[in-house]
Amino acid sequence: MAERVPVAVIGSAGFGGALGAMLVHRHPSLDLTAVTARTDAGTRHDELYPRYGVPLAMEQLDPDRIAEKARAALVAYPHKAAAPAVSALRERGLKVVDLSADFRLDQERYERWYQPHEAPELIGEAVYGLAEAHRDRIRGADLVAGPGCNSTAALLALLPLRDVIRDVVVDIKTGVSGAGREATPTTHFVSVTENANPYKTEGHRHSAELEQELGDGVRITFVPHLVPMDQGLLASCYVTTEPQLSSEEARALFERAYADEPFVDVIDSPPHTADVRDTNRCRVYVTTAGERVLAFAALDNLWKGAAGQAVQDLNLMLGLPETEGLE
Amino acid sequence: MAERVPVAVIGSAGFGGALGAMLVHRHPSLDLTAVTARTDAGTRHDELYPRYGVPLAMEQLDPDRIAEKARAALVAYPHKAAAPAVSALRERGLKVVDLSADFRLDQERYERWYQPHEAPELIGEAVYGLAEAHRDRIRGADLVAGPGCNSTAALLALLPLRDVIRDVVVDIKTGVSGAGREATPTTHFVSVTENANPYKTEGHRHSAELEQELGDGVRITFVPHLVPMDQGLLASCYVTTEPQLSSEEARALFERAYADEPFVDVIDSPPHTADVRDTNRCRVYVTTAGERVLAFAALDNLWKGAAGQAVQDLNLMLGLPETEGLE
Amino acid sequence: MAERVPVAVIGSAGFGGALGAMLVHRHPSLDLTAVTARTDAGTRHDELYPRYGVPLAMEQLDPDRIAEKARAALVAYPHKAAAPAVSALRERGLKVVDLSADFRLDQERYERWYQPHEAPELIGEAVYGLAEAHRDRIRGADLVAGPGCNSTAALLALLPLRDVIRDVVVDIKTGVSGAGREATPTTHFVSVTENANPYKTEGHRHSAELEQELGDGVRITFVPHLVPMDQGLLASCYVTTEPQLSSEEARALFERAYADEPFVDVIDSPPHTADVRDTNRCRVYVTTAGERVLAFAALDNLWKGAAGQAVQDLNLMLGLPETEGLE
Amino acid sequence: MAERVPVAVIGSAGFGGALGAMLVHRHPSLDLTAVTARTDAGTRHDELYPRYGVPLAMEQLDPDRIAEKARAALVAYPHKAAAPAVSALRERGLKVVDLSADFRLDQERYERWYQPHEAPELIGEAVYGLAEAHRDRIRGADLVAGPGCNSTAALLALLPLRDVIRDVVVDIKTGVSGAGREATPTTHFVSVTENANPYKTEGHRHSAELEQELGDGVRITFVPHLVPMDQGLLASCYVTTEPQLSSEEARALFERAYADEPFVDVIDSPPHTADVRDTNRCRVYVTTAGERVLAFAALDNLWKGAAGQAVQDLNLMLGLPETEGLE
Repeated sequence: MAERVPVAVIGSAGFGGALGAMLVHRHPSLDLTAVTARTDAGTRHDELYPRYGVPLAMEQLDPDRIAEKARAALVAYPHKAAAPAVSALRERGLKVVDLSADFRLDQERYERWYQPHEAPELIGEAVYGLAEAHRDRIRGADLVAGPGCNSTAALLALLPLRDVIRDVVVDIKTGVSGAGREATPTTHFVSVTENANPYKTEGHRHSAELEQELGDGVRITFVPHLVPMDQGLLASCYVTTEPQLSSEEARALFERAYADEPFVDVIDSPPHTADVRDTNRCRVYVTTAGERVLAFAALDNLWKGAAGQAVQDLNLMLGLPETEGLE
Repeated sequence: MAERVPVAVIGSAGFGGALGAMLVHRHPSLDLTAVTARTDAGTRHDELYPRYGVPLAMEQLDPDRIAEKARAALVAYPHKAAAPAVSALRERGLKVVDLSADFRLDQERYERWYQPHEAPELIGEAVYGLAEAHRDRIRGADLVAGPGCNSTAALLALLPLRDVIRDVVVDIKTGVSGAGREATPTTHFVSVTENANPYKTEGHRHSAELEQELGDGVRITFVPHLVPMDQGLLASCYVTTEPQLSSEEARALFERAYADEPFVDVIDSPPHTADVRDTNRCRVYVTTAGERVLAFAALDNLWKGAAGQAVQDLNLMLGLPETEGLE
Repeated sequence: MAERVPVAVIGSAGFGGALGAMLVHRHPSLDLTAVTARTDAGTRHDELYPRYGVPLAMEQLDPDRIAEKARAALVAYPHKAAAPAVSALRERGLKVVDLSADFRLDQERYERWYQPHEAPELIGEAVYGLAEAHRDRIRGADLVAGPGCNSTAALLALLPLRDVIRDVVVDIKTGVSGAGREATPTTHFVSVTENANPYKTEGHRHSAELEQELGDGVRITFVPHLVPMDQGLLASCYVTTEPQLSSEEARALFERAYADEPFVDVIDSPPHTADVRDTNRCRVYVTTAGERVLAFAALDNLWKGAAGQAVQDLNLMLGLPETEGLE
Repeated sequence: MAERVPVAVIGSAGFGGALGAMLVHRHPSLDLTAVTARTDAGTRHDELYPRYGVPLAMEQLDPDRIAEKARAALVAYPHKAAAPAVSALRERGLKVVDLSADFRLDQERYERWYQPHEAPELIGEAVYGLAEAHRDRIRGADLVAGPGCNSTAALLALLPLRDVIRDVVVDIKTGVSGAGREATPTTHFVSVTENANPYKTEGHRHSAELEQELGDGVRITFVPHLVPMDQGLLASCYVTTEPQLSSEEARALFERAYADEPFVDVIDSPPHTADVRDTNRCRVYVTTAGERVLAFAALDNLWKGAAGQAVQDLNLMLGLPETEGLE
């Protein structure tokens, strides 16, 4: 058996990082050698997340120590905090998948939606980690930016229409784990249960990823909604194409695009988030209604929308089978 | 004190009818004199719905007996079953609010979306019971058709734009009580929890109500989604107008339209279904994103989307204060 | 019509106080003249709680101003903070119902379970606000201590057995609103959903109320459990009596005890919390299993377990009908 | 690599059987060769349960065909239906783990709680499949009866106290998947959400398993409660022992009993069902309160309470590592 690649998970106390730690820990070709956390350092990971069974104590991030222990890292910090951590690990030669927004966008877009970039010199080498769009570039990359959960779902619903799409309304329904582990009025059980609500109607930063990936000629309206789920995300996309497509034509585009994709299923009826829970799969469905194409994608925001996709990227970067440790 | 008007609720064992029975029972100017049920006849209503506290036994529908006891009725039967019941009660002179689809549409539309109509002779006298659009006609009506829950929310989000709307995507998020009390694979707790899914993407019958109310020149794409809630409904409407509107212009239209509406609140931020639960209120919010107008409406599908709206209609038909018994 | 009694709600931003404000606002014989909040002062109450529709701005507590505006107050502060506020209002002559633990226990018990008492001189005049046990004393009281939600349910399940009970296991299942509005890791949606867990197994302070009310000869084991509900509380009580009772004997004791109680229903099958949601009712059921008596009580922790019961107490203190404003 | 053992899952359309099919499918040493279903025969399993990814069509049960394809079977039929199926498979030489109640009890107990037994001649060879109690006998068995989910949790909380227990109250909180896949009024989302309720207070059949396993000298009071969860089960056990134990003594008994158990964790604080979701683990906690010992056990009712435990048993019966395919 080949030696397993030593991997660290930076920021393993949050929801995405915790799942990343679990996936690396169980991965047949990876060896989880370190997990870090900012406020929970000192605690064992499996005390905080017993289900995941990661038997390591979380440590404070010390890039030198991590570089001694690991050849690759998943970084699961919030944006802005991620860039310096990524930079420190890249300087020490680690391959990195970053789950934050810091390396998803070109500098101009990033600074328009976020803030001045903390490590602009690295933007050039970063590859947008949607394997279904950039598999070959991910294979050769040292730094991959894991796409946002909303963007992943929307892009998987839209990529097959890339050449014909002119206008799209993206209406997202997302579970609460996407809002992170911090206890806030928004994440209080009493706020979430029996509730559905749009948020960031003034513009959500994930739409910048759509613009970048779909090209400037596409008009995008993007509104996320919070619904009472833990994990799960559904993107409903209402698309105007040119030329107009029949259901069969739209369907054919999807089948062609995803014929060989290991994690995307083109199905015959509308997708349910429950059907992909705790999997790295994305289920997509396309049909038409009047002149519009309707495309739906369901995924688990923590898996295919974050940590699962990050491991998929890592597999590609390390020359491992793309689906290893994810089935 | 004026004498209270005797009212019967036909089909009081379903979710909508049960709430209707409770609202009539507590209404200061109405007297709930009979409740009927098809399969649950013989059972006391407050055994089936203890929270509602209606201390009457449910009886089988006998139009003659109902006509002796009541001057008005709420009919909460499924479509197709409703028309003959309504017909029998109208023949005996009762004023009727029907919660089914049977009298919402003109005959041509109805038969296109449903089936041959069981009482076409009554369609002409029926008024579409959206008070915010047809208050004066409801006042004079003997038969009012309660709008669908989805349609109510969508129309309240769209009516102020009536003169300028050209195209709209209506994306609905609805709770499970809208699917009725019948136990089906769709309503099983395990099917609903941690799930969000589109349904009837091939066309939902409530969109026919939108077409009828908004006029034929409007292109409508309408997709409902089931989310893990009991009561609650959110309509997210993505509108193309001509001319294009600014946020301020859109907002002004809404404030003008709803200035005097007792149950519609134009608010400054996206509405939450939890904020209207167990109330007859609808909260609407309008903004713009790029060239589109975004309009959102949240209501409780059993209240403003069904039984509460029916009582609002009944108040108008009987010359009572419109909000009586609903606050 | 008699003049309405002006009432203030102190601490109206928390879940219990907010419901209290709504109940006073809608009460036909009470006039809600002021609502206060500590951190949310300045905000309108109906912005924070749109469902409740209380159209007042929350103010900082100023006892002199409150005394000008109100003759009675509900105080919904956390324990320890409540005592000084109650003291300030009592000094100014207001009748007070306090929802905290500060006046529920004799000083010795209180200081054993909580901390040194902030206003011990008032303990003597306080009456424990369980109307089903102390109705007459509440009628004459100026200061009433609203029982804990867990204690209310447990006591209503146990009071009819008072003369025969020797030992009881009280196993509580409670919704999250009982933990308060503060966002904490415990109240995060992701922590609560798909979870059930015991807490405070080392001893819960509400058991002190049971000891005080049931008398020292009763051995009490008391364990609360958090389950994924918003509002609702179920007490399952496993009782050893002396002499041993048959089901019929136990049932007879319950029917006698609660024959005239307006808010307690003795039912024929196990109670469901959903059946009392948003009501001031408590549903109780008693049976036997082997040598034990099993007694169950379901209530809404915010209503009969807090604010509803407080208004019931206030009605008694003010000479109003006990059920007014609560049906 | 050793050849994989061919295994069939009988009744794979229900919740327990479906998970069993998934676990066998992914098991490194087992080969899932057939799945059967009664009403869903003809459907692919991964259409019904996409998350589980079992790429087989469900067939009608034909014992001869199953015997050609498989050397062992999991039977996940309801009780009474299971016995004849088990009998047919045993006649053909297959090793069987039965998830129903049919072989858990001696004939006298079974017929007292259920109905006349359909295959009494097999009762003698059946071993009660709680590995923590009967590991050696399971190893040599051809027929193992998977314990009930409630019983598994309760027994794991109680077995270490076996020699000293005199009386116990077992209060169970269980998720809805335990009630099965059938759509009933009880499993309707609207019935389950915001609800907690005791059921079968007149006696639950799983208590017979406790009596059998703990011995006749123990007085057992057993009440299950339904709470709004999908998967998960918590047993809260209130135990009177003789002699009385200190916390330390109780804890020592648990640590000794479970020191080498691969799936039972003795923890330092009350267990949460969320922490074992989708795992085969059981987390137990013991403490004391006054004279009683309090013991809690949390597990996933579909895993350790049904299909996971069945695979654990199958591993033992087939001489495979006990934890294989379950981590």
